[in-house]
Parts: sequence; C-alpha cells; structure tokens
Amino acid sequence: MKKFTSVSDVENLQEIIKKALEIKANPLTETEKGKGKTIGLVFLNSSLRTRLSSQIAAQNLGLNVLTLNAAQEAWNLEFADGAVMNGDTVEHIKDAIEVLNQYCDIIAVRCFAGMKNKEDDVNESILSQFEQHAKVPVISLESATRHPLQSLADCITITENWKKDHKPKVVLTWAPHIKPIAQAVGNSFAEWMQEMDVDFVIANPEGYDLDKSFTKDVQVIHDQDEALKDADFIYVKNWSSFDDYAAMPEVKGEWMLTNEKLSHTNDGKVMHCLPVRRNVELSDEVMDGGHSIIYQQAKNRIFSAQAVFSEILDNIK
Amino acid sequence: MKKFTSVSDVENLQEIIKKALEIKANPLTETEKGKGKTIGLVFLNSSLRTRLSSQIAAQNLGLNVLTLNAAQEAWNLEFADGAVMNGDTVEHIKDAIEVLNQYCDIIAVRCFAGMKNKEDDVNESILSQFEQHAKVPVISLESATRHPLQSLADCITITENWKKDHKPKVVLTWAPHIKPIAQAVGNSFAEWMQEMDVDFVIANPEGYDLDKSFTKDVQVIHDQDEALKDADFIYVKNWSSFDDYAAMPEVKGEWMLTNEKLSHTNDGKVMHCLPVRRNVELSDEVMDGGHSIIYQQAKNRIFSAQAVFSEILDNIK
Amino acid sequence: MKKFTSVSDVENLQEIIKKALEIKANPLTETEKGKGKTIGLVFLNSSLRTRLSSQIAAQNLGLNVLTLNAAQEAWNLEFADGAVMNGDTVEHIKDAIEVLNQYCDIIAVRCFAGMKNKEDDVNESILSQFEQHAKVPVISLESATRHPLQSLADCITITENWKKDHKPKVVLTWAPHIKPIAQAVGNSFAEWMQEMDVDFVIANPEGYDLDKSFTKDVQVIHDQDEALKDADFIYVKNWSSFDDYAAMPEVKGEWMLTNEKLSHTNDGKVMHCLPVRRNVELSDEVMDGGHSIIYQQAKNRIFSAQAVFSEILDNIK
Repeated sequence: MKKFTSVSDVENLQEIIKKALEIKANPLTETEKGKGKTIGLVFLNSSLRTRLSSQIAAQNLGLNVLTLNAAQEAWNLEFADGAVMNGDTVEHIKDAIEVLNQYCDIIAVRCFAGMKNKEDDVNESILSQFEQHAKVPVISLESATRHPLQSLADCITITENWKKDHKPKVVLTWAPHIKPIAQAVGNSFAEWMQEMDVDFVIANPEGYDLDKSFTKDVQVIHDQDEALKDADFIYVKNWSSFDDYAAMPEVKGEWMLTNEKLSHTNDGKVMHCLPVRRNVELSDEVMDGGHSIIYQQAKNRIFSAQAVFSEILDNIK
Repeated sequence: MKKFTSVSDVENLQEIIKKALEIKANPLTETEKGKGKTIGLVFLNSSLRTRLSSQIAAQNLGLNVLTLNAAQEAWNLEFADGAVMNGDTVEHIKDAIEVLNQYCDIIAVRCFAGMKNKEDDVNESILSQFEQHAKVPVISLESATRHPLQSLADCITITENWKKDHKPKVVLTWAPHIKPIAQAVGNSFAEWMQEMDVDFVIANPEGYDLDKSFTKDVQVIHDQDEALKDADFIYVKNWSSFDDYAAMPEVKGEWMLTNEKLSHTNDGKVMHCLPVRRNVELSDEVMDGGHSIIYQQAKNRIFSAQAVFSEILDNIK
Repeated sequence: MKKFTSVSDVENLQEIIKKALEIKANPLTETEKGKGKTIGLVFLNSSLRTRLSSQIAAQNLGLNVLTLNAAQEAWNLEFADGAVMNGDTVEHIKDAIEVLNQYCDIIAVRCFAGMKNKEDDVNESILSQFEQHAKVPVISLESATRHPLQSLADCITITENWKKDHKPKVVLTWAPHIKPIAQAVGNSFAEWMQEMDVDFVIANPEGYDLDKSFTKDVQVIHDQDEALKDADFIYVKNWSSFDDYAAMPEVKGEWMLTNEKLSHTNDGKVMHCLPVRRNVELSDEVMDGGHSIIYQQAKNRIFSAQAVFSEILDNIK
C-alpha cells in the first residue's frame, strides 16, 4: 500500500480485514517493524478516537509518533495557491508539508470539510495538497469527503459480527442533527460497503441524497421504516445536504433511531462512528442497549490503523 | 490496589510511602512492568506538575502514555444523564469513557470542581461517571473534592523530613486568594493526615470551615497565630467557603504566611501543592527561604504517581 | 557544552558542524545516550519545526521527552520579580522552573520577544529567568534576541552547500512583512556568520539596522541590489526596527526577493528559517525554484538539535 486516502488504495479488502483481525488477536507481533521510523499525525481538527487509536497503532508497530495540533501549536495555515500572504495566515500548507517530508516517514492528516465552499470540499482542497506535495506515504485521518480508517474499522466490525450464511442487509441511515455536518463518513461507508459482500441500502430524507460519485447504483430509500425492515446492521449518521450544499432542508417524520424502530429490523446491530448526539441521532436506550456494537467499532479503530500503517511500512525501505 | 481516587483505596499507607521512597532511591527497577500496557491521562483542566510527573512515572514503568486535553483536542463533553444533546455538547462523557475503556489499561483523569453547583461538586459529578463507567482502574489526577496523588506526595515529603522522635505537629492553614478556589487539596490533605501518625490541626477564618465529612474530629482553629504555634509542618492552601458554597466571606486579620508568622513555629517546614500566588498566599521570603520544602513536594509527585501506578499494575493481568 | 543559548556556548563551531553532519549521515548511533534522562520542551509560543525536530533529535538519543504548551496546558505565568500575584497570573515562572528542575535533566524553552518593552526583550526577561533558576542545562528554542538552534542549522546548511574554494559571500537581507517581527533570527544569524569563514554583509532599509551588539563590524548596506551582487547565499528574513523598537518605518523600493533580484547573485542559494510569507518576503518562484535550500535548512534542524543535545548529555552524569 502506497498511501491510504480511500478504498481504492486497498488492493484486497478481505485480506486487510483478515490482517486486522489477526492484529486484534495479537497486537504485538510487529513491534520492531517501525523502529527508527516516524509517523506525523497532523490534526487540523478535533479528534478523540482517531488521535488515540492512531497513537496506539503506531506504538504497537514501534513507530515514533509526532502529534501536531496544527492550529493551536504551530501556525495559521494558508491553503490558496499563489496567495500573497499579507493577511492572517503565517505559513503555506505547501511549506508545512515539505517540512513534514523532511521529518516524517509517513504523514497522516485530519482535514475536515470546511462546509462553506462545495467545490473546495469536493476537490479535497487540503488533502489534495498533501497528496500533491508529500514525498512520503499519506494517510487520511478523515478528509473533506472520506473517513477511510473509520470505514475499514466498520468492515472489520461487520465481519466480526456476521456468522450467518446469508448476505447481511446493511442500512446506512441518516439521523437528525442540529448543525450542518459533512458527508465524509456517509460517503466513505457507502464506498466501502460496495466492496463488501453485503446487501447495502441507504435511507435518508428527501434533499439529503449523498454525492452519486460515492453511492453510484446503491438504492436510496426516503422512508426509514421501509429501509430498516429486516436490516442486520444499521449504521446511523447525520449529514447535511450535498445538492444544496451544507443546507439542512426540512425533514418529514421521525428519523432518530429508537428501540421501536429497531424492533422492525432482523435483530439488527447498531453502528455509529462517534461522537454521537444522544437522544438526537439515536436514543439512550439504543446506545446503551444490547444491539449496539458501537464501542466495538471504536476499539477496531486501533486495528484498522495498525493494519494500514503496517502495510504502508511494507512499502518503505 | 484496584483504583485510586481517595485514601480509602490505600490498603497500608506506611507501606506505599515506603515503596515510593524506594522508587525515589531507584526509579528504574520496574521498567518492564507496564510493557504493552497503556495509561490514558485525560485532562479536563490545566496541569503542570500532575501532567509531567504522571508522564515520567508512567515512562519509568514502561507504560505507553496517551495524553488527552479533552476540551481542546477532542470534543465538548456532555455530563448530564439522559440529556437531549441538541446544544453545544458533542459527546457524552459516558461514551468517551467507554471508548477509553477500549484503548487504555488504566484511565487517569483530572476533573476540577465546577464551583457553581455544590451538589454536583460534592457528588463528584464527573469523577463518579468515570468510576461508574470505566472497566479499567481509574486514577484521580485531582477531582472536585480530592487530590489524592498530591496528598500521597505530601505524606512522602513529611516522612522524608521527619527524623525526630516526637509526633510532628502539622498545620493546614488557609491562605488568601483572589477568587473562589476548590476545597479539594484541603479536604484531601485533611483525610490523609488523619491516617498519619501526626498531630494535625486546621487553621482557617470563620466561614471557611471545610466539609466535616473530610475533617471529621480534626481541631479547627480560627486564629492562625495560635494554630501555627510550635508547628513542625505548615501546609498553606486557599479554599473558598464550603457552607456558603464558593463564596469568599470577609476575612479578619492577615493570613498570608510570612517569615514573621513562621518565627512562631517550631522551625516549621512550609508546604504548598503549587501553583502558588506569591505575596498573596505566602510571601516571597517564605517561598524562597530555607523553610520551604515545596519543590521537594513537587518532585515527590513523580514517586507518588509511580508507586500508585505500580500497585495498580499489580492488579492488572 | 553546559548550556546552549548563543554561539558563545559553542567551543568549536567547525567541530559541532562536523558532528551534526555525521549525525545526519547516521542518526541512530547514540540511541542509548539519553536513556533514563528527560528533556522538557517548554513552549511559550507556537512552533512547528522546532517542536518536531527537537522531539526527533531527543528520540534519536533515547531521551524521554516532556512537551509542555505552557499557556494552554498549564498556568498563566507571572514574570515579574516580587510581584503581588493578585491578578491574572497563576504561577510564577521561577516556581515553574524550579519544578522543571525536579522533573528534567535538560530544559529547553521557546520564549519569543514580547515586542512591547525594548528593555524586557533586550534583557531576555524570560530566558534570563531560566538561566538564573535552572539547575540543569538550558537550551534556547528561540528567545527574545536569538535563535541559536536555527543558526547552527544554517551553518550546517551552508557547509553542506559550499564545495568551491573561495570564501562564500553570504547576505542576510531584510524582507517585507505586515507586522512587527522580532530581530532574533537576524541577530543570531549575524552572530554565527561572524564565526564562519565567509564574507558576510547585511542588507536592510534605513531604520532597520539590527542591534550593533550582534552585528558589530559587519557591513550594513541599505541598497539590496548592491548587497545581493555576487552573493553565494541569500538569507531572507524580516525584522522590525530595533532603534525605534518594534516600529515599521516606511521602506523605499522593493525588498521582496524575486528571481529577477536573484539573477544578480552568483547563482546564489536562498535560505529562510520558515515560516515564510509567500509573495511578501519572497516570491513563489523563488520559494519553489531551484535556488532554494530552505527545506534542507528545515531538515538540518534535526541534526543541529541532536548535536547540541548530545554535547549537553556529555556533560550530565
């Protein structure tokens, strides 16, 4: 693996899931693999799971870890090519990346969508600069349009929880929120599910369809109850409108996941990438109930990261 | 030791003081003990000594350390059970703790009193959630009502500095401050001194008596000069009113510790947990004079933490 | 080496440059040297290169690293001797340093000029407290008037890039900026160049002459074009007025370094300490062109730090 910013960087999804589960069973078999090498974890945004799980994964591989909270600890970054930097920005992202090239063997970066300019977000205005200027492998810790380490952890979690012999029905369902949230987790989960041997559908209100370039031919249902019927896995996530970018068009009906709604599924397991707004996206009873595999998902972030870092290290001399 | 949030978690105080002093004499005898294990240091508040000494202690034991400045690096936390999270809070503390359970073998947390709602603080509204939801040992890095790693360091420091054959007289004296400060250090020191073989009294102005559930039968004197007489150790600390919670009732007389006041003690050693407001809580001449053992106290924070972490590790498979 | 706050702490500049280049060729030959020892990296200001390169250097030497973002993670510091601390400051720098003495074998600190009070900055009001109160070696990570780890990296970079047999002509040229910037990098580079076997001149607009105590007899030219003529190395850096402290007197002519200006040099290499304001201090075409050795300079920060830390460790039992 040369970089990891989307599912297309994975040669064989089943292989890497298998590898991650082997790591989970025995996380300390490659403690020398990263010796003398450095991974830079660059956070342009908040992070709990990604921050901690990436550090654990790197430590398990013997990597040195440099964590940089870019805005608070370093300098206000300029992102525009050709900018005359006579304003508030102190360092160009290009120069920061070139310096990281000098210091790191792997650069991992979290750069959320700005949710202001659709074109900037769709074009991955920040991650694309890392992909363009980095001379070492780049790993996405969530970008404007994707969250691939999360999606790999999701695939691992579904694999662990599926022992039956029919294809599982997986539903990605939109959930309410109070402010405009990026589509990254939804996009990414949709992309990865299309590579898994599952029956996958998306449920969201009208006006909230995800970008077709991620969902492709996946069935999109605007009636949550219909979509949830017989679901084996229910992935709960909010996102704002893609078409009317970052808008929150009015929603008809109740979309918060509750036990009542869950009762129409096939004893479905509930997933969420966290953080979750309790009693807004899903109810306390769902979050704390026996159907949730959400914390297991969080734990699998370690093994998702470790499998990816390990495969990246295979490609570094 | 299964957890460490108050003196009641210590089976044998003299034993752990002895252990801490052995660690101080030779800090690197257990560098393999924590190998492959992870301690999460979660800071909901500022920290210098606790932050650094905990990191050193963990490193000395071979533990992996994850440090999380929760507010700045992760998400704004919700603390209320059953909250409909449609406001500013992004992640429920319960979920953050459950995730930390997945990532850490030990969770250490700093969560100061809010000083707004007495009941919340008395009930340890935050630490209690860690105690309830953590599935791994919890260590307090100072909570609303106690600062036990500090108190253990205080006991170590008194032990080191006491070679005479009479019981030392230890005075915890209130000191002035400019804003409402929690009672945690005072409460905690009072609790621990009751377990030590010392004569212990508390001096504070009227209106500033600490919570009786911590001070129990300890003599409280409202005249500082009287209390300081023949003192062997003088612990200086401000706190706001407990009865009229977080208020700062008017104080008669001078309470800042000065050399003049010190001259009435038995060549008393001066202690403070730091940070200290110079020339408000105590004078420069005291802080910089030969009676202060305050920096030694700060150093002993390492060995207090290391003794506790080590005993906690004894209970983890 | 007992401390490292200016060029005068270096016994033999050519020796330490040689050592740094050996480290660059093979950075992991002393991985046991710092074992069991701790370096505290204290940041009172933002940092990218210094932060990361110091961590890498310390790790390469087996040192434990404690990083403290003092303002955000610890307490608001008081700097005035004798202050009655009844205001916003919570901990005196003296006490913070005394605590660091207890925790660290080496203290490294970044403390920029405040740019408000000339006397404070000239007297290194913060660094001087570290030099006075630290009982362990102090390393400057940039102070009010100097940036010696940068200057050493600059010397390493010039050495690497100079294979001809005449003395190189090195020009330190002022560059435009939008706000008052400290003189530290300029002062420091001037000091170190006087110890190198180079022909060194400074170009800056009238009103922008650096403090004579750093530049001494170095020729200062107020015409950039004249100064750049036949230059082999061009160091670009802004600073505000020293005489009219922190003022930005009006500047005649264009001072931003461009390819056109570069064409009058002797195929000159361009240097900058970063962060750089593109198209203000120098043009994109210079930054991204073949004459820039700026990223190499950034990389050499690792080896500058590692050489210094290593020499400091030689003096610690």
